[in-house]
Amino acid sequence: MTKTQPIHDITSLVQAPLDRLNRELLHDLAPGHPEMRPLIQHVGGFRGKQLRPVLTFLSGMAVTGASHGGGLSDDVVTVAKVVELLHTATLVHDDVLDSASVRRRIETVNHLSGVETAVLLGDYIYAKAFHMAVQLPDPTAARWLAETVRVICQGEITQILHRFDYQWNEDRYFTVIAEKTASLYAAACRLGGFYTAVSAASAQGEARKANEGRLRALEEFGLELGIAFQIVDDCLDLDGDEAVVGKSLGTDLTKGKITLPMLYLLRDDGQAQKLKDLLGTSEAEGLRRLRAEFPLEHAIAYAMEEAQRRIAKAQASLSPLPPGPARDALHDLASFVMTRRV
Amino acid sequence: MTKTQPIHDITSLVQAPLDRLNRELLHDLAPGHPEMRPLIQHVGGFRGKQLRPVLTFLSGMAVTGASHGGGLSDDVVTVAKVVELLHTATLVHDDVLDSASVRRRIETVNHLSGVETAVLLGDYIYAKAFHMAVQLPDPTAARWLAETVRVICQGEITQILHRFDYQWNEDRYFTVIAEKTASLYAAACRLGGFYTAVSAASAQGEARKANEGRLRALEEFGLELGIAFQIVDDCLDLDGDEAVVGKSLGTDLTKGKITLPMLYLLRDDGQAQKLKDLLGTSEAEGLRRLRAEFPLEHAIAYAMEEAQRRIAKAQASLSPLPPGPARDALHDLASFVMTRRV
Repeated sequence: MTKTQPIHDITSLVQAPLDRLNRELLHDLAPGHPEMRPLIQHVGGFRGKQLRPVLTFLSGMAVTGASHGGGLSDDVVTVAKVVELLHTATLVHDDVLDSASVRRRIETVNHLSGVETAVLLGDYIYAKAFHMAVQLPDPTAARWLAETVRVICQGEITQILHRFDYQWNEDRYFTVIAEKTASLYAAACRLGGFYTAVSAASAQGEARKANEGRLRALEEFGLELGIAFQIVDDCLDLDGDEAVVGKSLGTDLTKGKITLPMLYLLRDDGQAQKLKDLLGTSEAEGLRRLRAEFPLEHAIAYAMEEAQRRIAKAQASLSPLPPGPARDALHDLASFVMTRRV
Repeated sequence: MTKTQPIHDITSLVQAPLDRLNRELLHDLAPGHPEMRPLIQHVGGFRGKQLRPVLTFLSGMAVTGASHGGGLSDDVVTVAKVVELLHTATLVHDDVLDSASVRRRIETVNHLSGVETAVLLGDYIYAKAFHMAVQLPDPTAARWLAETVRVICQGEITQILHRFDYQWNEDRYFTVIAEKTASLYAAACRLGGFYTAVSAASAQGEARKANEGRLRALEEFGLELGIAFQIVDDCLDLDGDEAVVGKSLGTDLTKGKITLPMLYLLRDDGQAQKLKDLLGTSEAEGLRRLRAEFPLEHAIAYAMEEAQRRIAKAQASLSPLPPGPARDALHDLASFVMTRRV
């Protein structure tokens, strides 16, 4: 077990390909009509921690035990771009769904240019991402990512259909967050490994099959990491610090989205009735009462323990990969997810 | 020149593959969770004239001069499905953009299940369509259609950015409708021809290149047909019969979308000022005044003449194709577009 590194030390290993991705992405998105350029540039401002492309790059290194990111193939960079664009498209549409006005301290597209432009710009970015994916000589990424987006939407729609559904249970919660969030992490990791293994295999004449164990390890890592990420996200919505998180909190309460800490509170019949009365109220009122009248810290601790178990499972799943700095960085990135407040 | 046939005679030539498409599509869309099924079935009810898959099938026949649709390859059926799904996804999102409550006399998804579900269901259908496209052994359809969806969104966004823009002119109007509407018609035709030519070429050992002239002819046909279709649509929004069209009219006026009949009226400085005052008013008021105070019939006649020129151009572009019933049907389908009232 290595000592956990701060996030910038983890990502520094892949700073070169990440810089290349950020240099090229705005150019790749360039529209045919100049009037769309300000919109594209505005969306570029949403850039966050870029966890998904970092995972793709680290996975690309980890699958061969490479010690630096300079040797990553062009195909791996393309996969990382596609994953980041698909994530960006989901954010643009999420902001429409949430009627959000601010994302990472800048105006959302729907707030700046209206719901119509935001829906269409999300579609535009999806189409551009798929178009980049189908330029890859190997069709695996295009197939895997089209299926991933379908699964993301399926998870999100299922969650909406089950708002205020008090029959909801942990199994279904985990299925939905695996679909809507973790599936893209799993794809980012697996495909980063796959496109490195493909070029290594064609260079060395190895059978691609031999790498399947490592690719499964990366996929499993991404899946468990993504589940933990979403659990932490759901906890932050209830007990985060609005000034730090940078978006309004309590929206799950208002929308009747039943998350893991709420499922904990619903176990107790007395609390359950009180909580049902509280779901659907305004964010401020809901959060105030939740914090004052419920054992919220127990509910959060319960959920965070589950997240910690998922992180441990993610880290354990790395064992089939050759030891090296990329595998260590993936391990530390998983620990980082537990400490995030943003 | 053949005598124009009624639409059911034209489509009867491809009834067998069309029936197969309709049998398979709902099954293809089947989600992993049963709670989504009613949504998918509801969207299935939007089925309209299915012009785009009809074009794909007729183009597949026309490229080789085949006399019936029974010999169309599985790949051509897949292309037709993907094109129809992409069109369906744009309809689901269009209804969100227009806050429409009725489509082809049934409730829109946003009206039935809310804006959030409608945005996500559109994304779901896009993803499913791309996933089907990337299953094809030849990547041409996936590449062409991803680029087509990008272009459709670019056209729609550009049109929104230029609402109430009185500097708008015919060239830019034609560019935007070619992008937002005609590009998918062009793709439907070209790809129907392409996937037939691909299998014919591999069977007969012919060079694929030899077919490029026919594929360009089909693409040009689809493009001009699609432009004419959109011009007729824009005319119907101003002078159609609401009971026949089956959706609310006058929305372009209200939204400040400047279409070809309006560009005609804007040419006259006196009318231009009056029209500017009228754009943005309610549908009923706008339509009433437009019909009472403007030479609307001249504006419509002007636009319909342009549509007729595009139809003639589409029909002329069919000449490189071998004569036969499919080429005749494409010719008649183009004439049909001019007579439609729905």
